[in-house]
Formats: sequence, C-alpha cells, structure tokens
Amino acid sequence: MPIITLTTDFGEKDYFAGAVKGAIYSELNDVRIVDISHSVSPFHISEAAYIIKNAYKSFPKGTIHIIGIDSELTPENKHLAVKLDDHFFICANNGILSLLAAEINPEKIVEINIHDKIQTNFPVLDVFVKVACHLARGGTLEVIGKTISEIKYMREFEPLVNSEKNQILGHVVYIDNYGNVITNISRKLVETVGKGRDLNIQARRVNFSEIHETYSHAINFNIEKEKRMEEDGKKLAIFNSGGYVELAIYKSNPSSVGGAHTLFGLNYLDTVSINFK
Amino acid sequence: MPIITLTTDFGEKDYFAGAVKGAIYSELNDVRIVDISHSVSPFHISEAAYIIKNAYKSFPKGTIHIIGIDSELTPENKHLAVKLDDHFFICANNGILSLLAAEINPEKIVEINIHDKIQTNFPVLDVFVKVACHLARGGTLEVIGKTISEIKYMREFEPLVNSEKNQILGHVVYIDNYGNVITNISRKLVETVGKGRDLNIQARRVNFSEIHETYSHAINFNIEKEKRMEEDGKKLAIFNSGGYVELAIYKSNPSSVGGAHTLFGLNYLDTVSINFK
Amino acid sequence: MPIITLTTDFGEKDYFAGAVKGAIYSELNDVRIVDISHSVSPFHISEAAYIIKNAYKSFPKGTIHIIGIDSELTPENKHLAVKLDDHFFICANNGILSLLAAEINPEKIVEINIHDKIQTNFPVLDVFVKVACHLARGGTLEVIGKTISEIKYMREFEPLVNSEKNQILGHVVYIDNYGNVITNISRKLVETVGKGRDLNIQARRVNFSEIHETYSHAINFNIEKEKRMEEDGKKLAIFNSGGYVELAIYKSNPSSVGGAHTLFGLNYLDTVSINFK
Repeated sequence: MPIITLTTDFGEKDYFAGAVKGAIYSELNDVRIVDISHSVSPFHISEAAYIIKNAYKSFPKGTIHIIGIDSELTPENKHLAVKLDDHFFICANNGILSLLAAEINPEKIVEINIHDKIQTNFPVLDVFVKVACHLARGGTLEVIGKTISEIKYMREFEPLVNSEKNQILGHVVYIDNYGNVITNISRKLVETVGKGRDLNIQARRVNFSEIHETYSHAINFNIEKEKRMEEDGKKLAIFNSGGYVELAIYKSNPSSVGGAHTLFGLNYLDTVSINFK
Repeated sequence: MPIITLTTDFGEKDYFAGAVKGAIYSELNDVRIVDISHSVSPFHISEAAYIIKNAYKSFPKGTIHIIGIDSELTPENKHLAVKLDDHFFICANNGILSLLAAEINPEKIVEINIHDKIQTNFPVLDVFVKVACHLARGGTLEVIGKTISEIKYMREFEPLVNSEKNQILGHVVYIDNYGNVITNISRKLVETVGKGRDLNIQARRVNFSEIHETYSHAINFNIEKEKRMEEDGKKLAIFNSGGYVELAIYKSNPSSVGGAHTLFGLNYLDTVSINFK
Repeated sequence: MPIITLTTDFGEKDYFAGAVKGAIYSELNDVRIVDISHSVSPFHISEAAYIIKNAYKSFPKGTIHIIGIDSELTPENKHLAVKLDDHFFICANNGILSLLAAEINPEKIVEINIHDKIQTNFPVLDVFVKVACHLARGGTLEVIGKTISEIKYMREFEPLVNSEKNQILGHVVYIDNYGNVITNISRKLVETVGKGRDLNIQARRVNFSEIHETYSHAINFNIEKEKRMEEDGKKLAIFNSGGYVELAIYKSNPSSVGGAHTLFGLNYLDTVSINFK
C-alpha cells in the first residue's frame, strides 16, 4: 500500500490538514497517510527541510512526501516533483529542495505543469494531492511535469571551513521540543576536518570540549544516586540522531526550568564554531 | 472502507482522542480514522463549525464525522445524528448544526436515543463512537434515534445586508494558524450584493479596496527582486480557500512579526463591513 | 491487523514521531499506528502514565503500546517489555510501569536485551520499534528479553488514608486541556474509605461538599435560561471518565476566562484532602 506523508506549516487547529487527507482518500482507497509535522513555523523553509530530511529516511523506498510550506504558485515559486534517494517529494521551488538535496543528488526533477489552468490559493489541496495520488498509482513524473535541472538554492545554510582547516563555522538551524539547539554541522564534517584532534565548541557564552554519542554519556553514573540528581540540567554537546552537532541540557523541560535554547541564549541562525587544536 | 473523522476540543495532550480511536478500533476492524482537529478552543462552537464545514467537503460521500465539543447530554443539549450533503455528522444539539446547515438543508436529523440508560461524562467515547460504528456498518439513522425537524439555531452568526443593498455587515469568525482573520462574509454574498461594483472593506483601522483571488495576486512581481522583500508583510483581502472574505498579511508569522490578527487588532466577533459604491 | 500506539514527549513539531512511524511501516505492511499523545511534558513520567493508563483500556486486547519518555538506556534505566491486562507495553524502567501496574499486576515483564550492541540516542526508533514489530508479528517476550520480577517504583504517587479512616490525602497528578485538575484519588478509594458518609474536599482555598457523576449534574436546569449562563464558570468536583476525583470549572476555557488550574491556584503535586464526617 503506498504511503503519502505530510509536512506542513498548517498548524494543529485549522481545517487544512483534514481537507488534504479527505482529498487523498477521495482519490485513493488503498493508501496510508502519515502526518510528519504540521507545526513547522509559518513560511520557515529551513525548519521544514530539517524535519523532512530527518524523517523521510525511516520510511520505505517509494514513499511520497508532500511538503506544504510557502507553496503558492507565483512567477518565481513553481511547483516541483522530485525523485531523490528513491523517495518522491512534492514541494514548491522555494529553496527547500536544495537543503534536502545537499547530500544526495536528485535522480529526477520536474516542474509540475498539470495546473496551468488551475487558479488556487490552496495548492497543496488542489495540486500536490493530485500529483501525489498520480505517483501513488504508479504514474511517472514525466506525465505531470517537464524535466528541469536547475533549482533554487539557499547557500547560506552551509557551514564554512577556514583555510587552515582548524575551524568549522556553522549556525543554529533548529530548536527542538526539548529546547535543544541543533546546528548545521554534521558528524561527517567534524570527522573529516577534525581528523580526531581535540576540539572546542563555542556558541555565545557556552563552551564544550567533547561531543558525546548519547545524552547519558555525559553523566557520571558512578557517583551516589542522591548526588546524581544534580547531573540533570548538565550541559552537553552531542551528535544527535540526525547526525548533527546538538547543544543540549540533560533532561531539560523548556516550559519549567528551561532548555538549552533559553539557558544558552541561542537562537535560530546564531553562530556556532568548532576549533580544532 | 468507511471513514470516521474527529473534530474536537480535546487538545493534543490528553488521553481523550486516543481513547476514542481505541474504542472505534475495538468495534470495527476495517475503518479509517482521520483527525481533522483536536485543537478547537474549549467549548467554542463556531470555531468547530468553521473547521468541520471547510474540511468535510474534501472527504468521500458517506464519511462519518464525529464533532466532540460541548457534548455532555443535558435537558437542553440532546445528541444528534444527521445526514447532510451525503455525509453523516454526530454532534450535540448546541447550535453547531445550524452553522453547518446554513447553506445546505439536512436530509435527515435524528435525536439519538440509544443511551437512555447510559450515564456518562465522556459521551463522545460512550455514545458517539457507538453511533459512528453503527453507521459505518451501514446501519440507518432510524435505528439509533427518532426523527426531529427543529434544531437549535445560532442566528447571530449570519451577516446582515442593509436595505439600500450597498453594505454588508459581517464579523470575524476565525483566526487561522497564520494569524489571518476570517469573516463570515461569503464570496457568494459579495457577488450577489455587490454585482461587480467597486468596494471598500473596513475593519477597525484597516481598509481594503480589493478582494484578491490568491495571496500572491496582491504582490507586484515586476519590481526588482531586492525590493520585493518589502512586499512580505503587505496587507490584503482575499477570498480564502473556504470561500470567505479573509483579511491577511502576506507571508505572516504570528509568533515573530505578527499576523493580521495582532497587527490589525482584530478579534473574534469584531465587525467587518463592506461598502459598495 | 495489529495496532501499535505511541505516547511520547516528542512534541507535535519535531521529526521524531514521523521517523518512528516510518520505521514501523518499513518493517510491517499490515499494521495500524495510533498516536495517543506526543505532548507529554518533557521527561514527565507521571503525566505519561496518567495518559496511557486512561487510554489503553479502550483499545482491543493485544494492542502494543510504545511509551517514549525518558527512554535513553543507562545503567539504571533499562528497557522493558511488559504484558499487562492482555496489552503489551514497551517503555524504560523509570518508574512509569509501577504507575501503570498499581491496580493490575503485570503478567510478564522482560528486560529487553536485543540491543546489547546498539548504541543509540534515539532508542524509541532503534529499539522500541523493533520490539513492537516483533510482538505485532506474534513473537514472544522471551525472545527479546529476560524475565525479571522487580521494577522501579514511584511510591510517592499513592494517596494516603489516615489511621482513623476519615481522611484521604492525595495530590494533583494532571491538569487537562480544559484546565481541570485531576487528583490521584480514585472513586474506588473514596467509596471504600467513605462508605457513603458525607464528605468535604479541600484544596488550597477551595472546598467541595459533593462529588458529581457528570459535569452538568452540578448545574440547575430548572432556573430560567437567561440566568443559567451564570452557571457557566461554576466550580464542581466530579468523578472523571478515568475514575478519579477531578476539580473542575463548568465549561471553562483556560485561554480566556481560565480553568480550575489557574482559578483555584492548584498545580501539579499540590495536596488535595477529602474528609469524611
């Protein structure tokens, strides 16, 4: 049974996501619809990219992913359908695909042209659903669009390495539900540039001299249990489950004691640097 | 496979929606459950009506919609099951049906009487699920209730037209995830009353002289790209995807720069008038 | 078709829940995944227990429940798979099981040992999904873990009865979407200790002399409709749908007029006492 996923900035309350699911079931009886997220910040393309990039890999090959963010058709914002890593993505040409395709080259990109006569302010419902159902029935990309090779790029999201190869300059790309701060610096980049050297991470006033593999690796379990409670709230750097450097607070609750985001004073796009010795 | 949708004020956190889904699967193996929204503001009947009214039409005919809001059985708040526009709705007789039925007459309305002996403070779980599963199995409305013809009305939600036929007086019925402000003035009413005349929309301090078809229609794509950024944040009026007059900010993010709701100072039930020249 | 439910503190926005669903569908084609809640407060074990305890009973026997909260594997936080009340639960040994098992003894508890070589900071994705799919295919607990008999206890969550048997001392364990305040005092305990005597509930500055069966039982429907509106906002105590004493405001909306939580000034872990006369 084909799977269609939804990643949007529709929010949890409005009728948008419900209408989209209804439209899919109206076209296809045998399909699974999976909500990945409807809580992307409005028009926040890099957040949407971070979420879908880390979620899609867990799905079976052939899954169709609808990305409903900043998707109104304009002279500069055409609609795309893409095959990448054996998954299909349907989105607007607003830069999101360049973030998704940073590591893996798309196999095929088409600019959707089934809607030359459709005027709509709800393109996810009126266009993306039709394309998704076409693909779910085994249809090809060529039928619903014309092949293109150039897409819109968002280069500002790539980390920089200095010429001496002893510094990586990245920035914050996402704050998660625990208030943890995720950077665009990948494990691969740290290992390639660092080559096992000692390192120091700096972000505003906080420093880290180690990147842990799991949250609890930073915790000393040999001290007595009573004193261990103090380890809650410890700051740490980690390679997160998506493979990126994350600055975290152990067992943080953003709504009570606060998370790394507020305690470190780190916001979206703030600079994070790693220096190797 | 039958589809049962859920529109409630249960919120995203509590066990209520999970329990309802479990109860449906306990009765029926072959059924699709679709969450439309669980984030309706508590006891906010017109919000729930706005959401379900705009979502249900995308679903296949025969879909069963559970509306779980203000649904405790009281001497004045009986439970209804309704066939309308070839869809089924299960809700309390609290006025929500009159909002749903404003444009389309219900085919059949029954007052549910299967629970004369059920005392419960969770009627969605204990009553609505049973009715929904009965209908999903192909059961008739007559079996679970007695036909009635009168339902509770909420007349205050209808826009007014003055006697000179040059003014429509409506109000704000919903604020969406982008902070956009939706009125109860439909495209049909504007076209019927306006007959193509020039118009002016007034709502507190803001004015609009045009109603656009899409958000980007309000944007000038012929100016240079660098200056175009200033177009983000532009105010505009639009016929939204539900067919109602919406007052919006182009690409607004309510949690950062603010949306129409906060920037225009417009709240639920505030007056919006359209004057024709 | 097997059912796997998810109760986590992942939040509605992040990629975590989406990735977990993708991983399940990658292993199993014929399965239903049901979100119970992803909005448990981060690391809030008793909240998660309250939610799953009240949701699971509505699901068919044999349902598999993944509880993703505080689940990183540490020397003190092993992973468990449990059969209880003919349902399966997969969670960390962090005390949550003792809250679930307070009323019903587990049939079998195993400490999961399939991952002795898996190092992960996303155990729900990398371990719990594998165990859930194993069980969904009809596999036994013995294959994926070794039987244990002792689990971690959280005794502080049990209400106390004084030696004269005329007072129950409980506390607030949950605040729901309506701002209503739920205690850990069950109907069964009230009936066993109270034996039908008059009672008085005290919590900070508020008092209640009756525990209602439904919200509207506290409302006088014989007075004129116009005056009835004043009954909205009335305070009341009720046995809620989960069977616990709840302190509520009739038709409260926490985001406008406030709910019992804010109006009574009652927070998580605050004391609630019932005195019998």
